[in-house]
Amino acid sequence: MKPYILLTPGPTPIPDEVLRALARPIIHHRTEEFGRLFETLLEDLRYALRTKNRVLILTSSGTGAMESAVANLLSPGDKAVVHAAGLFGDRFAEIVRAYGLSPVVIGEEWGHAASPEKLGAALKAHPDAKVVLLQHADTSTGIVNDLQSLSCVVRAESDAILVVDAISGLGGEPLETDSWGLDVVLSASQKALMNAPGLAFMAVSDRAWRLVETATLPRYYFDWRMMARSVPERETPFTPAVALVAAQVEALGLIRAEGIENVWKRTAGLARYARERGRELGLELYPKDPCNILSAFRLPAGLDGNKLVKDILREGRISIAGGQGPLKGRIIRVAHMGHIRKPDLDAGFEALSKRIPSGARKPR
Amino acid sequence: MKPYILLTPGPTPIPDEVLRALARPIIHHRTEEFGRLFETLLEDLRYALRTKNRVLILTSSGTGAMESAVANLLSPGDKAVVHAAGLFGDRFAEIVRAYGLSPVVIGEEWGHAASPEKLGAALKAHPDAKVVLLQHADTSTGIVNDLQSLSCVVRAESDAILVVDAISGLGGEPLETDSWGLDVVLSASQKALMNAPGLAFMAVSDRAWRLVETATLPRYYFDWRMMARSVPERETPFTPAVALVAAQVEALGLIRAEGIENVWKRTAGLARYARERGRELGLELYPKDPCNILSAFRLPAGLDGNKLVKDILREGRISIAGGQGPLKGRIIRVAHMGHIRKPDLDAGFEALSKRIPSGARKPR
Repeated sequence: MKPYILLTPGPTPIPDEVLRALARPIIHHRTEEFGRLFETLLEDLRYALRTKNRVLILTSSGTGAMESAVANLLSPGDKAVVHAAGLFGDRFAEIVRAYGLSPVVIGEEWGHAASPEKLGAALKAHPDAKVVLLQHADTSTGIVNDLQSLSCVVRAESDAILVVDAISGLGGEPLETDSWGLDVVLSASQKALMNAPGLAFMAVSDRAWRLVETATLPRYYFDWRMMARSVPERETPFTPAVALVAAQVEALGLIRAEGIENVWKRTAGLARYARERGRELGLELYPKDPCNILSAFRLPAGLDGNKLVKDILREGRISIAGGQGPLKGRIIRVAHMGHIRKPDLDAGFEALSKRIPSGARKPR
Repeated sequence: MKPYILLTPGPTPIPDEVLRALARPIIHHRTEEFGRLFETLLEDLRYALRTKNRVLILTSSGTGAMESAVANLLSPGDKAVVHAAGLFGDRFAEIVRAYGLSPVVIGEEWGHAASPEKLGAALKAHPDAKVVLLQHADTSTGIVNDLQSLSCVVRAESDAILVVDAISGLGGEPLETDSWGLDVVLSASQKALMNAPGLAFMAVSDRAWRLVETATLPRYYFDWRMMARSVPERETPFTPAVALVAAQVEALGLIRAEGIENVWKRTAGLARYARERGRELGLELYPKDPCNILSAFRLPAGLDGNKLVKDILREGRISIAGGQGPLKGRIIRVAHMGHIRKPDLDAGFEALSKRIPSGARKPR
């Protein structure tokens, strides 16, 4: 059976070196050898995140990292401002509600980036907000937010801690944790970081840590204080996904070797290429403020996106993503982050071209 | 560098077939191909757990499964009886406290199995207990509990839901979820199930599910209701550790091929062998009620267990475990579960024999 061509926004394809690291004989997690891996991982994550902040490692999906931010920063009665204009913003709001708090939800029309002005107004109206929760890129709509401007507004208008979900953005979109003043940045292994799913990462500023020390929402497995206490021992409080740690070190090594700015540029180049290929098929870009890590295309009327995705997978083992939530069936999403390269995109658009009615197309 | 000989009670060595599955190109988790893996995994877990109950899959360490049981079964003010006679019982108590509840902690001297009589008395004294939390095997002390008798007592004396941490026991010690009436059984990938760490499993009876529907402790990532809703779609609510799922299917396939009763017998045989080898070195077994998955040996006076473990690892790349908590430095622990075989034990005892003073030894 030929392998998938994975063009989904997570999991994404894994380089051979990284797959080989996954298959190395397992080592115990309280040894010198694991300690060195752990230390390298933290150092490489700081490189990718452009931060000197404390970095923590968690065995879970990215959603676990999002929940850990809520549980470690907030106390009952606290106010959280959530920017939601896609599935993952909605998820932040759901997590806040699951802990018995009422989020202040602001948003835009889906496909639009967060407006710094609106965020500023919300913070003026809610000066007691403890945290602001928002996305870097949102793969459900294909947008990227202007984190630098958003962070400026948060600092100018409030004392709130800014929490950024960069689960898909880290390693694909430009991100400057320290110079943009991002207090908490969350990420995960299976998107632009080119590893299998199962690891999540949190970068936490000293400013944010003051909240961690006083927050009283219940947490144990997600407790950042326990994780931080284990860092000097070069280990995690609970058995980590050792194979994924070894593989992540390998994948981040590839990113360091290329240089993260070069990775950002390459990803931007692939985004331009994908959009040109899409235009040729008459596919209009869905988001008004598109990110570089994936292209979300509106489908011509009468074309069922769910069926299209299934047909392409069945026939060519090419995995693209359909729309989620209200966009189900109406858009398709082609990722171009991490290890995805031009020939993968060519295969994807070739498969699409066979199923998009030629009437929709524009001359090349 | 020669690979470790892993004799630690998790992670444990991984068979080659399973390592190869870890290194397969990643597939998307919302596809027919993943759906088939997911379904096979649930079926194989039910086989190993000897249950027809609902089985759920979580990407986390085993501790995440323990926390998920607390968060899904309890509400503020609820009473939980925790049996603690080792590190993992203490952990259950800590998790209950982290959620603002006061556990009723009962116990034994470390190294002794839980007493059904004492548990019965505790349940008589606390007839309003909602759950009983206890271990199957406890690797920190090397004991195994008589789950069948304990479960009988719970049913006879109360309406409490019995939660069993079988994180290390499943696949090593005899376990009959349904015929012993175990309401909730928790396990994880990296012990007797021969996979890399990062997956946890929960088997939940219909009786327990009634509590899940009404419990109000906060949970999102750990929410069993969301997981259960995804099962008919043959997926998980959040991106699962796809590579670990593929590898777990492979590992459980090996267990099914051998037959779980045969795995139990083989493990018991290795336990007898390890204890004989230990006796020859003058090493006395620490627990009074020893399990089959590992042997915890008391060290002769004057021998520092921490140093011993480090020396053996550095010299021969053989990883055995030291004592934890109050047993630090005082015992060593040699695992014989999962993929660990006689030659691995031979290498371990050979390395030990070079470092145990011969005065302690008994003639072979």
